[in-house]
Amino acid sequence: MSDSPMTREFIAPLALLLILLAGSSAAAAQDDMVWREVEPNNVVFMELQEGRVIIELNPVFAPKTVAQFQRLVLSRFYDGLPFYRVIDGFVAQGGDGSDLGELSNVPLIDAEFEIDWHDELPFFSVQEPDLFAPETGFVDGFPAGRDPEAGKVWLTHCPGTVAMARNDDRDSSRTDFYIVIGQAPRYLDRNLTVFGRVVEGMDVVQRIRRGPAAANGVIESDLERSRIRSMRLGSEMPEAERLHVYVMDTSSKPFDRLVDDRRVRKHRFFVNKPPRVIDVCQVPLGARVTK
Amino acid sequence: MSDSPMTREFIAPLALLLILLAGSSAAAAQDDMVWREVEPNNVVFMELQEGRVIIELNPVFAPKTVAQFQRLVLSRFYDGLPFYRVIDGFVAQGGDGSDLGELSNVPLIDAEFEIDWHDELPFFSVQEPDLFAPETGFVDGFPAGRDPEAGKVWLTHCPGTVAMARNDDRDSSRTDFYIVIGQAPRYLDRNLTVFGRVVEGMDVVQRIRRGPAAANGVIESDLERSRIRSMRLGSEMPEAERLHVYVMDTSSKPFDRLVDDRRVRKHRFFVNKPPRVIDVCQVPLGARVTK
Repeated sequence: MSDSPMTREFIAPLALLLILLAGSSAAAAQDDMVWREVEPNNVVFMELQEGRVIIELNPVFAPKTVAQFQRLVLSRFYDGLPFYRVIDGFVAQGGDGSDLGELSNVPLIDAEFEIDWHDELPFFSVQEPDLFAPETGFVDGFPAGRDPEAGKVWLTHCPGTVAMARNDDRDSSRTDFYIVIGQAPRYLDRNLTVFGRVVEGMDVVQRIRRGPAAANGVIESDLERSRIRSMRLGSEMPEAERLHVYVMDTSSKPFDRLVDDRRVRKHRFFVNKPPRVIDVCQVPLGARVTK
Repeated sequence: MSDSPMTREFIAPLALLLILLAGSSAAAAQDDMVWREVEPNNVVFMELQEGRVIIELNPVFAPKTVAQFQRLVLSRFYDGLPFYRVIDGFVAQGGDGSDLGELSNVPLIDAEFEIDWHDELPFFSVQEPDLFAPETGFVDGFPAGRDPEAGKVWLTHCPGTVAMARNDDRDSSRTDFYIVIGQAPRYLDRNLTVFGRVVEGMDVVQRIRRGPAAANGVIESDLERSRIRSMRLGSEMPEAERLHVYVMDTSSKPFDRLVDDRRVRKHRFFVNKPPRVIDVCQVPLGARVTK
């Protein structure tokens, strides 16, 4: 299986096996996976010195934050800014503009921690309860939590989650954002505005230069910081050159099968059958990028 | 707090605050943390092209595997071998020696998935139940799961976990190992032999070259693979030059406070108090390395 650490002699025959076990792994499932194209306006191409990262913005959960982020990208605000606070296993934080001078022309954003649940939201439930939420699942490809009693839904903190930093005031986000690079810090759910996720290039994000633990991850020397070369919206590209980004349709049957095959491990490799549970942050979500 | 993404103006005053809130973060807790020195025989210095990684071996949970791994290190078996299968967000797998010829002189190792619980094991419980286990906690610095009814304890799959790959046969591990580099694949618990963990250098491990998802992470070209320059046991270093590795004493009061402060988030930053739970794989475990 592609999601188990098998010794090498087993990997080759396994490639064949995978074709038979449709849905048993992300790789196999992609053969019949249903893909959704991300609206070019919600695609961010972030070029780092380390390579290209593709982010999908989520205006359903964070309309104000996404609108401001899109404006900042269009105005080239982030181009050249560094990741100044990077804690291995936790977050890479950047996009602070205070070195560029007065930020009072960039408004603070109201908190967008969660939204009201409504029937049109395609919530695909995978776990109930989860350690940190009454229910978890996916909404349009984003890992999410739900509290049916309170009628609230929110995007969860998983590896690759993109969210706004803030200070103690809940409505104090402005430009500074972070990407989760380690084990899901789910205790942050509903306390910060998640507004996107990395759909391609987490390997690139993992190469961002870390800061010292003793300094709380802050890298003092600007020269030693990884830097954002540019950020562009997909919609900025001329149509002829435009890259199209596709993500898994998490409301589709093939995705459902993929999750089921992770919940119930039928392969004989699993000599001790794992509990039939799903960690919403541990389901591999593929993406495809084409011209 | 060091474990929250705050905007920059808040990080500086926070450094002061942290001294007052002893135990509120890994960084602060280290001031009064109790440290345990890792026996030099159980320390592995793995030099990659990307930098130095320090692994602690665990002979209590995996005595046979550790004994064989130590022999392989001493015989320089791993020096020069690549990480040939690397899946971003999952595992970096290496140490396969089949290119070097016949491996029949390296014995297969019996599975060591779990051990019997006994009173002398210093199991520090943090969560009951956890999504994947009746109980989780720490044993001598290692994240662990426990089933009190079955009387079993095992090391869990967390980021930084070092374990042996195998094929479908449970007793088929030999030399091939993997390091977890993404969200904890807890469904592998009790199905593979965990025998160590990275105590320093996960930032280095995160720079290991990834393989293509379509090829199940396997990097075909040997030239493109990250390579192990050398592996040495701490006990191989002459005493005068020896590096001493210290890890948090997870049975100590300061560690207990650190976990408590993560479980009950008192800081006003948390406008929505998170559930009072602990993900055993999301507790930062510090290490200190000195001459």
